[in-house]
Order: sequence, then structure tokens, then C-alpha cells
Amino acid sequence: MSCDYFELANPGIQKLHPYLAGKPVSELERELGISNIVKLASNENPIGLSEQVKIAIEKEFTDGCRYPDANGHYLKAAISEKIDVSPNQITLGNGSNDVLEMIAKVYVQSHHEVIFAQHAFCVYPIVAQSLGATLVEVPAKEWGNDLPKMLEAITDKTRMIFVANPNNPTGTWLGESELKAFVRKVPKNVIVVIDEAYTEYVTDDSIPNTIEWLSEFENLVVTRTFSKAYGLASLRLGYAVTSEEICGLLNRVRQPFNVNSFSLAAGIAVLNDEAYLQKAIEVNKGGMQQLIGNCEELDLKYIPSAGNFLTVDMGQNAMPIYQKLLLKGVIVRPVANYSMPNHLRISIGLEFENQKYVDSLTQILS
Amino acid sequence: MSCDYFELANPGIQKLHPYLAGKPVSELERELGISNIVKLASNENPIGLSEQVKIAIEKEFTDGCRYPDANGHYLKAAISEKIDVSPNQITLGNGSNDVLEMIAKVYVQSHHEVIFAQHAFCVYPIVAQSLGATLVEVPAKEWGNDLPKMLEAITDKTRMIFVANPNNPTGTWLGESELKAFVRKVPKNVIVVIDEAYTEYVTDDSIPNTIEWLSEFENLVVTRTFSKAYGLASLRLGYAVTSEEICGLLNRVRQPFNVNSFSLAAGIAVLNDEAYLQKAIEVNKGGMQQLIGNCEELDLKYIPSAGNFLTVDMGQNAMPIYQKLLLKGVIVRPVANYSMPNHLRISIGLEFENQKYVDSLTQILS
Repeated sequence: MSCDYFELANPGIQKLHPYLAGKPVSELERELGISNIVKLASNENPIGLSEQVKIAIEKEFTDGCRYPDANGHYLKAAISEKIDVSPNQITLGNGSNDVLEMIAKVYVQSHHEVIFAQHAFCVYPIVAQSLGATLVEVPAKEWGNDLPKMLEAITDKTRMIFVANPNNPTGTWLGESELKAFVRKVPKNVIVVIDEAYTEYVTDDSIPNTIEWLSEFENLVVTRTFSKAYGLASLRLGYAVTSEEICGLLNRVRQPFNVNSFSLAAGIAVLNDEAYLQKAIEVNKGGMQQLIGNCEELDLKYIPSAGNFLTVDMGQNAMPIYQKLLLKGVIVRPVANYSMPNHLRISIGLEFENQKYVDSLTQILS
Repeated sequence: MSCDYFELANPGIQKLHPYLAGKPVSELERELGISNIVKLASNENPIGLSEQVKIAIEKEFTDGCRYPDANGHYLKAAISEKIDVSPNQITLGNGSNDVLEMIAKVYVQSHHEVIFAQHAFCVYPIVAQSLGATLVEVPAKEWGNDLPKMLEAITDKTRMIFVANPNNPTGTWLGESELKAFVRKVPKNVIVVIDEAYTEYVTDDSIPNTIEWLSEFENLVVTRTFSKAYGLASLRLGYAVTSEEICGLLNRVRQPFNVNSFSLAAGIAVLNDEAYLQKAIEVNKGGMQQLIGNCEELDLKYIPSAGNFLTVDMGQNAMPIYQKLLLKGVIVRPVANYSMPNHLRISIGLEFENQKYVDSLTQILS
């Protein structure tokens, strides 16, 4: 007797689209026969690992055969001190993707609805879909979260709402008063997840410190990552901050050794390396001006961004431009899969990397 | 309006027991006021990281701010060559725990039953429980999987069976003929997961090469890890080998960057370091003799083991002995939570580590 193993899979899984990841840059260089490709595609920090992180990693060699500390004791203590919450409110993840999955796994079932915005990070619908939940995508307003419309979308079946602030891939952001008024109006039995992956790049009070709201809103979960301004994308490290009660539940579904020893050590090291974060922020500010200047020069519209990337309206189908940039050795991110076929998202790199993009795009469009 | 966030959680999650992890050795030393603790508790490889792995990790510093290769292209190629399967049959995990979760997530729903043996690895019931499935624990036979009884336990609702070979925490193993006859009799709509975390320690034909069976049994999933003989527990790396069809489904639920860059590089390095694996196996053989010799000297029964640990019957409640060993600076693993209150599981360490255990136990029992 044979069996169809696709049909046998859970219905939510069958509807998932397989993730199509890019090839390693080395593979791409080999295929295209070019070298020195500049990658401005994944919102990575361009300045390289903190030297303190390298030292911390090498120290871990001694116990490299040992399992990581399942509780992440020392890293949670360091984060706790940094953001002023109890370690019992922190859940560590193998990247923030991991904590987003845990949150959904604890609270979302197949009869629930999950709300997120058009042009929001693709992981939100993926985690909801994999649990068989109904996806409710709310049209964006000026490329960002339309909070009043998201409130209107809440029904008896809604269990979770995802809001990214700043938003990826658009870079839009929500200020204190509008976001807080929104959270206040969400029913208590709906979990509000505010994804702050890019928050370290915002140094003024454009976006609120939602961590301070946790005592007021017990249905609030804030997620953060070390993959962006802290420069640890290779290592996979993120965390959620919640009430102690929700944190306890997240830790029930967390794989005990989900965060590797090198990430635990690297996280502590980079939190203590304030000069690194400052440099990352400065490089980002400079690069943002470079990219904006280029948009103005080429008369291209762009979405003002609070992140480490700029999403630019090419005024035409962006795919051929993406391809031409690729052949010139510049990888950026097409966002047609985010219903933005005319836009490209450009991650901010080092000055010479940005310049290579600027020069290439200028050539292509002239 | 307030809300009970425990009650709001999914029913399967509410029933999960929070994982109680041990403290870091450094914390324990501080608390107990002792130093040079020997840890023989987590079936870790005692010989330290492969030098090739250290070199590979340092090479990754250059791209440390970049996301890992989401496809694990080069590591899958290396594994593919080593075990002679297509890369399209391999799913990489953040430890084998991660792949065990993915398999369950793809196929198990709350109305299903999941079968595993008494004294089997605690992750099997945890992953099934977190999906709300019914756990079916089949009594062991001589501390190992009772395959005929596991077949009898299959009902219309059974969706998955976990078999570890060798088994942890008992070290028992199943030979080719009995295991193959079992797999043949399992209905095709039941996924058979054979967890081979310890397989590299078995150098004769005591246990079968189940990878070769994949073409015959399309409901078979084999999982392996780099945490044991390959010595990469700190880095989190495991994989599943299946049909290409099931592999495609696993990759739909896999977090795209679940395996960090350092693990990808380390995995390739250690696969190419054959001397490392040989040393790990030799040290294990020597240590096994040391521990068995001690059992015979102290007239203690033990469960013959094909793994890197020996589970010893202390002939009395083992908890006080565990505590006394701890005070002497030796951490072993009590297995009362595996319904084995009189046993302790001792991971095989370096000769001096084993000797410290041997001397301590001898003192305690005399």
C-alpha cells in the first residue's frame, strides 16, 4: 500500500509556500562569473562583527563540546540590566523568528484568526499559516500599519496581531500616541506582538519604548533581535519580552538548547560594546543620506525609513532593474512578494558599497 | 477586563511541563563552594572541539554580520557525500531536537496518537504534547524498545512512532532483522522516526544502516546529530534524512535561518576530520571499559550500552548517591524522570574524569 505524504501532512503545512532562499554570494559569483559582489539585500549590519564578539567566541572553544546553558542565565542577566526588566520576562530565541514561532505556538490554533498588515514581514503569515490559522491581512496606509483598520479587523476569532515598528520591508514607523492608543483598544484575549527588530537604529523618540508598557498591557509581547544593529545575524539570536506568565509559557515550548553557546557569549559581549552600536548607528545614518541623495538626484520616490534600509519606487516594474544591478555585482531585494512590484529594498551598506549601488543604478536608469 | 493567559494558551501547551535545565557548571561551583567539577551528565563528547572546527569558526568571522546560508548548501553536500543520499533528502536542524519538532509539526495534529517507548528520550513526548496529541508510552522490554508491543499499540489514530537506536537514556540497541521487520509492519500512513543520535559510536554491525532502507520505506525518517561523537553540542546541529517528498515538507516548516553560520562551517570541518571521530570512538571505548570495570568491582548491575554513557543500577534510590557525587564534584544524571529511580546515567568522559567518578562512587558505597 502506498501513501501520499503531501496529503498526509497537516492542512496548514500543505498551504505553506516553501521558502526560496538566495544562493550564497560565493555561488552567485561563480555562476555569474563576476567577483566582489556587494550584498545590500538582507538588512545586515555592514560593519563586521564586534571585536569583543570575536574574543568571546574564541573563549567558548574550551567548552565547545558542551551543551549551551539552557537557561541563558548570563545573557538574560545582561539584557535584563540593559532594558530594565526581570530576567523572568525574557525568552531567548534562535533569532527573533524563533520567538515569533513560539508565541504563535502557545496561543494560536487552527480556528483562530491572525492579523497583520499588508507589506509586513513575511514570517508573520508563515507562522500563522503553519498552525492552520486564518490569515487576515489589513491593507496598508502609506506603506505602514493602518492601526484603525487593524482594530476594525478584530473579530471573536482573532487571537494575535503582529505589528512591526519600524516596519520591514517599508521602514515606516509608528509614534507613541497612536501605537499606545491602539494597544489599549485591543481586547485582552488578543495577543499583541510588537516586533522591534530595527529599534536600535532609532535614537530619538520617534518610536516609543514599549518595554515600559508591559506592566500596563498584559497581552503585549515585544520582540527584538541581535541580527541588525548588533551585527550577529550569522549567530541567530533574538528575544521576546513579556509578562512573567506569558514568558513561562513560551519557555515551555522553547527547545531547551535553542540558543547556541557562541550566541549566548556573543550577545553579552556586544551588549557591553557600546562603541560598536554607536558605530553601527552612525554608519547607518551616513548611508541613509547617501541613498536618499541618490533618490533625489534620480528623481525617484522612496519611503522614509527608520530602519537600516531604504525602499525605493523605481517608477516601473523593478525586476529588470534588480537583474541589471545583479549583473553589475549589486544584490538588492525585490519586494514583489510583498505586493510592491515597482519597489526595491536597499539595505544600507558601507559607503563604498552604497556608492557601487548608486553608480550602478544611475547608469542603468540613464 | 483581565484575562488568564495560562487558560488562554493552547491545551497541549498547558499540559507541558516546563523544562528544568541544570545550572551552568560555573554557577554550581560557586553555589557549592567547590571547583574542578567533572560533568558526566549530558552525553557530551569529552575530547574537546576538533581543531579543524576552530579554524572553520574563525574563518566565519569575516561574514559574521551576514545571515547564514538558508539552504545549508555546502554542508548538505558534505553530508550527502558522507552517507550517500541526495542533498534533497537532507533537512538541517538547530540540533536534532529541531528536526524532531519539524517532523511532528508537519504530520501530527491534536487528534493523533504518537507512540514511543518507556525510558525513551524525553523530547518525543514533549513535541507530541505541544501539538496536543495523545501520548502512547509502550512499556519497555529489558530497558529497550519492545517492538512487538509497539506494533500492537498502533490504532487508526496513530500518526507517528519514535524509536531511538541506540536508545537514550538506557543505551540499548536494536539489530537489523528485528528493526527492519518492525518498520515493514508499520502502516504506511504512520511516520516512523528512527533517532540515531549515538550511531557514530557503533562501529560494528550491531545496529543497521537505516539510511539504506529509505528507498524501501517511504514513511521512514532517520535523524542524526553532530552533538555527540562529532563534538558540536555547543553549536546545535542535527539533520533528518527522508524521502525527497517528506524533506520538502520539513523544509516548509523549517525556520529559514535555523542553522547558524558557525555550525554550517563546523559541520563540514568535522565531517572531514576523520581522525577526530576515530579519537572520540576510542576514548569512548576505553571509558566504557573503565565504567563497566567499576560496576563489576562494586557488584552493580548496569545496562549494556551502545552509546557514550552507561546507565547503572545503584540497587537503591539513586538520588542520595547523585547528591553525594555532586558534593564530591561529579555531576551525573539521575533518571527518575524516566521511571528509573534506582539508576544513574554516567556519560563517558576522559580517563581522569571517569576515574574521579569511579573513586567517588566507590567511597560513597563503601
